[in-house]
Amino acid sequence: MNKKKIWQTDNGPGLDPLIEAYTVGDDYKKDQKLLGYDIEASKAHALMLQSVGILNGQELQKLLEALDELHEQWSKGNFKIVQSQEDGHTAIEQHLTNKLGDIGKKLHTGRSRNDQSLVMMRLYLKDNLKQTMELTDKVVEALTKAGKKAGNIPMPGYTHLQKAMPTTVSLWLDSFAAGFADSQKILKATLETIDQNPLGSAAGFGVNVGIDREHTTRTLGFSKTQANSMYCGLSRGLFDLIAVQALMPIMVLAGKFAQDMLLFTTEEFGFFSLPKSFTTGSSIMPHKHNYDLFEIMRGHAHAFGSYTGQLHAISSGMGSGYQRDLQLTKGITLRAFTTAESTLEVILAAARSLEINELRLKSAITQEMLSVTEIDKLVSNGIPFRDAYNQVKLELHKLD
Amino acid sequence: MNKKKIWQTDNGPGLDPLIEAYTVGDDYKKDQKLLGYDIEASKAHALMLQSVGILNGQELQKLLEALDELHEQWSKGNFKIVQSQEDGHTAIEQHLTNKLGDIGKKLHTGRSRNDQSLVMMRLYLKDNLKQTMELTDKVVEALTKAGKKAGNIPMPGYTHLQKAMPTTVSLWLDSFAAGFADSQKILKATLETIDQNPLGSAAGFGVNVGIDREHTTRTLGFSKTQANSMYCGLSRGLFDLIAVQALMPIMVLAGKFAQDMLLFTTEEFGFFSLPKSFTTGSSIMPHKHNYDLFEIMRGHAHAFGSYTGQLHAISSGMGSGYQRDLQLTKGITLRAFTTAESTLEVILAAARSLEINELRLKSAITQEMLSVTEIDKLVSNGIPFRDAYNQVKLELHKLD
Amino acid sequence: MNKKKIWQTDNGPGLDPLIEAYTVGDDYKKDQKLLGYDIEASKAHALMLQSVGILNGQELQKLLEALDELHEQWSKGNFKIVQSQEDGHTAIEQHLTNKLGDIGKKLHTGRSRNDQSLVMMRLYLKDNLKQTMELTDKVVEALTKAGKKAGNIPMPGYTHLQKAMPTTVSLWLDSFAAGFADSQKILKATLETIDQNPLGSAAGFGVNVGIDREHTTRTLGFSKTQANSMYCGLSRGLFDLIAVQALMPIMVLAGKFAQDMLLFTTEEFGFFSLPKSFTTGSSIMPHKHNYDLFEIMRGHAHAFGSYTGQLHAISSGMGSGYQRDLQLTKGITLRAFTTAESTLEVILAAARSLEINELRLKSAITQEMLSVTEIDKLVSNGIPFRDAYNQVKLELHKLD
Amino acid sequence: MNKKKIWQTDNGPGLDPLIEAYTVGDDYKKDQKLLGYDIEASKAHALMLQSVGILNGQELQKLLEALDELHEQWSKGNFKIVQSQEDGHTAIEQHLTNKLGDIGKKLHTGRSRNDQSLVMMRLYLKDNLKQTMELTDKVVEALTKAGKKAGNIPMPGYTHLQKAMPTTVSLWLDSFAAGFADSQKILKATLETIDQNPLGSAAGFGVNVGIDREHTTRTLGFSKTQANSMYCGLSRGLFDLIAVQALMPIMVLAGKFAQDMLLFTTEEFGFFSLPKSFTTGSSIMPHKHNYDLFEIMRGHAHAFGSYTGQLHAISSGMGSGYQRDLQLTKGITLRAFTTAESTLEVILAAARSLEINELRLKSAITQEMLSVTEIDKLVSNGIPFRDAYNQVKLELHKLD
Repeated sequence: MNKKKIWQTDNGPGLDPLIEAYTVGDDYKKDQKLLGYDIEASKAHALMLQSVGILNGQELQKLLEALDELHEQWSKGNFKIVQSQEDGHTAIEQHLTNKLGDIGKKLHTGRSRNDQSLVMMRLYLKDNLKQTMELTDKVVEALTKAGKKAGNIPMPGYTHLQKAMPTTVSLWLDSFAAGFADSQKILKATLETIDQNPLGSAAGFGVNVGIDREHTTRTLGFSKTQANSMYCGLSRGLFDLIAVQALMPIMVLAGKFAQDMLLFTTEEFGFFSLPKSFTTGSSIMPHKHNYDLFEIMRGHAHAFGSYTGQLHAISSGMGSGYQRDLQLTKGITLRAFTTAESTLEVILAAARSLEINELRLKSAITQEMLSVTEIDKLVSNGIPFRDAYNQVKLELHKLD
Repeated sequence: MNKKKIWQTDNGPGLDPLIEAYTVGDDYKKDQKLLGYDIEASKAHALMLQSVGILNGQELQKLLEALDELHEQWSKGNFKIVQSQEDGHTAIEQHLTNKLGDIGKKLHTGRSRNDQSLVMMRLYLKDNLKQTMELTDKVVEALTKAGKKAGNIPMPGYTHLQKAMPTTVSLWLDSFAAGFADSQKILKATLETIDQNPLGSAAGFGVNVGIDREHTTRTLGFSKTQANSMYCGLSRGLFDLIAVQALMPIMVLAGKFAQDMLLFTTEEFGFFSLPKSFTTGSSIMPHKHNYDLFEIMRGHAHAFGSYTGQLHAISSGMGSGYQRDLQLTKGITLRAFTTAESTLEVILAAARSLEINELRLKSAITQEMLSVTEIDKLVSNGIPFRDAYNQVKLELHKLD
Repeated sequence: MNKKKIWQTDNGPGLDPLIEAYTVGDDYKKDQKLLGYDIEASKAHALMLQSVGILNGQELQKLLEALDELHEQWSKGNFKIVQSQEDGHTAIEQHLTNKLGDIGKKLHTGRSRNDQSLVMMRLYLKDNLKQTMELTDKVVEALTKAGKKAGNIPMPGYTHLQKAMPTTVSLWLDSFAAGFADSQKILKATLETIDQNPLGSAAGFGVNVGIDREHTTRTLGFSKTQANSMYCGLSRGLFDLIAVQALMPIMVLAGKFAQDMLLFTTEEFGFFSLPKSFTTGSSIMPHKHNYDLFEIMRGHAHAFGSYTGQLHAISSGMGSGYQRDLQLTKGITLRAFTTAESTLEVILAAARSLEINELRLKSAITQEMLSVTEIDKLVSNGIPFRDAYNQVKLELHKLD
Repeated sequence: MNKKKIWQTDNGPGLDPLIEAYTVGDDYKKDQKLLGYDIEASKAHALMLQSVGILNGQELQKLLEALDELHEQWSKGNFKIVQSQEDGHTAIEQHLTNKLGDIGKKLHTGRSRNDQSLVMMRLYLKDNLKQTMELTDKVVEALTKAGKKAGNIPMPGYTHLQKAMPTTVSLWLDSFAAGFADSQKILKATLETIDQNPLGSAAGFGVNVGIDREHTTRTLGFSKTQANSMYCGLSRGLFDLIAVQALMPIMVLAGKFAQDMLLFTTEEFGFFSLPKSFTTGSSIMPHKHNYDLFEIMRGHAHAFGSYTGQLHAISSGMGSGYQRDLQLTKGITLRAFTTAESTLEVILAAARSLEINELRLKSAITQEMLSVTEIDKLVSNGIPFRDAYNQVKLELHKLD
């Protein structure tokens, strides 16, 4: 079966194997994951080609059937893209041409691999931004519920990791809920920003055959067509970057939650715990119950900055017009979303299973934490704040 | 004059000079720039204190007058914060106490340096996000205008830095205009997200004296109060991060525009130029006219990823509850906004002064760039796309 | 067959599937690549255990044979680690226990998965640093050879992408050779720094059974034992970081070489080319010959900063004592070395196949590039440098 | 007094103020700090010019005197570079020309601002790498001394922040000492790598007047001349990057030490403390003694990755040949060294003042931490390790 590059003619020069391996990299493996979106957009493209008369009704029918069949094959793991094909776009065309002959050769009319890849990623981003928003909603709900359940259980408030003033478990949980809730606004604006159909921009300069870009916009459910074909190219990498940026608040909050939990589940603090089935053990120390889940979470939170870092570095490292550096943005984007989504799922599970050690929390509210209350009393009696502060401080010094 | 730490009592232990220099760093210099916002929030706080009866009318009057006078002094460069004061918050309290005695000592009732710093930065971010949006609007307008002026002047479209298909100067300029216009959506959502009043959250755990947080929210023009006091603390660093993230699309587009301009102003391409007053010279080569402005722009675009990188690293590197790492976020945020705003101003100037070399552009549209038109003709005659492609490719090979 | 966690007893609590998937991630796939090193270190560990009397001669013999056999199985792709085992260390122990019973259960005496993972990565790093140094040597040689072959062919020297002064192709190629040669010093110092045996440090606190750490140091060819067991743990992540940092100069030079090549292979510059087998085509534009290899190279160079970024973020994001964030450093390190090594191979191929367009280079040396020669003549006649500069500049202005 | 650009002739076009502000940025303020190195290299250049006959003895004498005088003026804070001069190099030439007339105009013979800036930074880097190495030595010594003083005081060893096995304060301190000691190797190799004289490479293409590069190499104490003039340019940014990379292990260790100290100085752990003069207070909570020094240290450690990140992004973001992006590397490098050096000083002070709470440490060694000792006893009796582990684990479960 034909598995060569799409741009090679039969007697054309071959591509040096070292260069092929280097330029393709593992990109074809990413396309393996994304092929469903490529097939979806290919169907929309075929429908449009028929609407403008480039395909006839019978050709369209055969293409749609073949694409549906391919989708089923792929979703069952029975369709594999190989490195020599470079990418999923080529794999689709070759599959269709092998199966349908000339009809398969017609599907690429009015598009390039550039806009094909763009629309595939755009559909991926839309789907995953929505999924992230749903998960975030659930996390907000679970944290709020856990907060309500905690009622008025007190908790020491810390600044600088030193005991500061009393607070409550509920307020602590709600503070994270508020943060996750606020993350939704930027996720939504990001989704609205990228919700533009790039299909039909071809290599960034449109095509000369009469295509109908609004047709695919409607079929694929985009809210508008990304009209300027050069902007389609310009937005590659950039839209991935803003989408991954929208995940950052989630990951920062996850990192902070993880660190709080790691501290508060130490034997020394002992405020919270999770069921044993959430903890792991040691290969040599039989007594260990470790909260690895929060360490992996913290690690992902720390490493996450590099996803936007890489997307930014690649995107800002070149001028306009498609250049292949952009291929590298695909894997980074997939990894970022996978990480954020699984992290949200783990927070959700943890919030639902949180065990609160009320006794330890209560006994941790020690006397000195009430120093501000002392000051406030003096202030109520008319003593200026700073004088009250100094008076309480001097008394505390005597106890030192 | 008293310039010691706010938390030191007269006979308390001093702070080791090495530790003071290390912990304060150049933060007091940042506060020097931000003091106007601190004064504005202090006035709102005083008004609120009077409304709940902690200050009487006369005390309020004196405080407002003293704060206005301080603002004037500061804006003229006549008020300097010193390192031993640690920060602007302390400098303000000491100034007022020196001037007004007990009245000055009362202003810190119901607030901490934590929420004081938070509200100051929040006001800064709101102002600067708005300013960025205005500048971005102007850039969109200037690019669009330049595009219209260019009319139908053709321009070679490049992919992989090799000639691809013909396009126009206008489409190229408009693609950047579209990108900048789209940046506005996320800027707006970011502004809406951070538009919450943290004042009154004190050290993250509220206060026991009866304050009215809605009062300062109204006075300062926030759209709502950030109700959960622990969330106020949690959002420090995080809100700076999302604000600076909102500048990233601008900087990526700036970097790409800069690289296009650097390429297209080389002698070898020669498509565009700017007036001599935009270029710089060499200390040894008298013939040079360099486009340093675009190199600095590209350098800033490349380095910009590290601003979000640093804000992310610091924010995600600690749990909830104020910790002093967060102090370091202030300088990064200031630098990021200064960079983005000045970059927009330079793009604006460049767009308004762009000189187009029509002759060079026209002669750069070479024959092989029309290969897709050849294919499209064959396709119109019913030849399947891939066959048409291969046919044109074989003809081109003969010419090689 | 038994494929459960090493720390689970038969009737112990299971690990929640969501938490297992999240904490294990794709780490077991990394171990699949690294298993050879784990087996090598396990053999050394077995030899040591026999030398101190924990294993007898027959037990050792059986373990060594089983480990050799496992190595062969693995290298043929017939041994697969599964997620439920968490890692390769567990997979090895279970394989041996299934095969050898009690003898297999003895191998973990005196070690933990912590030092087992450390020594595995240490061996990987040593191997790959050496391999990188060999490849770098070859690149230096190839560039030098290409430079010699270029002889005295002139080349315009550019600053700010504008023509500056004449130089030669040879000097340009040699400048990269010098850079790559200098990279070796830090690679060598890095190799010397990490060449320490961590095996026997167990979980970071040693063991109580009498083991002989010098024994495995000798067997595995380390130059010394990493004596302090807590330092072994502290160096995890950190040593990966310094190893990947040592690759940075290579990647920066690669990025710069790629950008030079992308510019100099445009039609507009036209100084160099590579054989057709190094270039790729377009799915719609049959005339294209693109230098994707340099775009992928530039993309990798730009993204590379994030590898050290991630290693730094994870390593500096936690205190001493093993924490599972560190697991995430493994995949980053592997990716970084794979990228750097393949990039060196591509530069090597490009340097060996570089085609020089002497005609274009010669004609690109234009008159104004000799302005410094004009000044130097005046200086020889005793005119102060700055006056000479101004004089030549004024003459050039007349020509503008 | 003349404070214009060095490359402007009297009747040449002016530079647009917006462009001037944008391209110069705050670079002239960095040069203000570095001017001493520029003067040092200028003296060496003058000596060389006399040795090859471009200056006569009297001219040299006057230049040296004027440069010495300028150095004194500068070190007293009485010489200020202004923005319109662009940089310190221009400021020096204008100062000398104003003072000495034609003699001043001769100093720039045989050099460009490019190599002048390069040699200035090279001298800075050499000085600061040496200073860092000295400080690191002191830190190693102080930690070792503190470890010796701690003697056999036990300490709980933690993995995953949960109690693992007993260790000692001494081993913990020594593990950091070992890490800092190992950092020296790469610092040394870095110093050796960059110890090359770039002066005389001019704009990257040498000069035509006969200069003697070995002469300045000797005078300035470089170990060799950086012979290839294009490599001098290529190494700009790159050498800054490798120098700052050499500081990374120090900052990672500092970050980990800071986090350990923050944890171990909480009330809940209570293992260590520092004198009151090392801690800070709160503006509203009079009872607070905060370890801000370690939070600032951790913050710097986290943010430090962005210094190499920025240097890498800028350096790898452009091809060879000087481009002005590189100007931005200067400030980053200065900030990185200042941060690392002050951090070392603070660690030094902390190590020297460390207070150990022996009672809390002893009582923290709890029974379950001896589980591995239990296993080791069983292993000594011939029970295979994994069976012994399971046996002890089952016993522990009974206690749960």
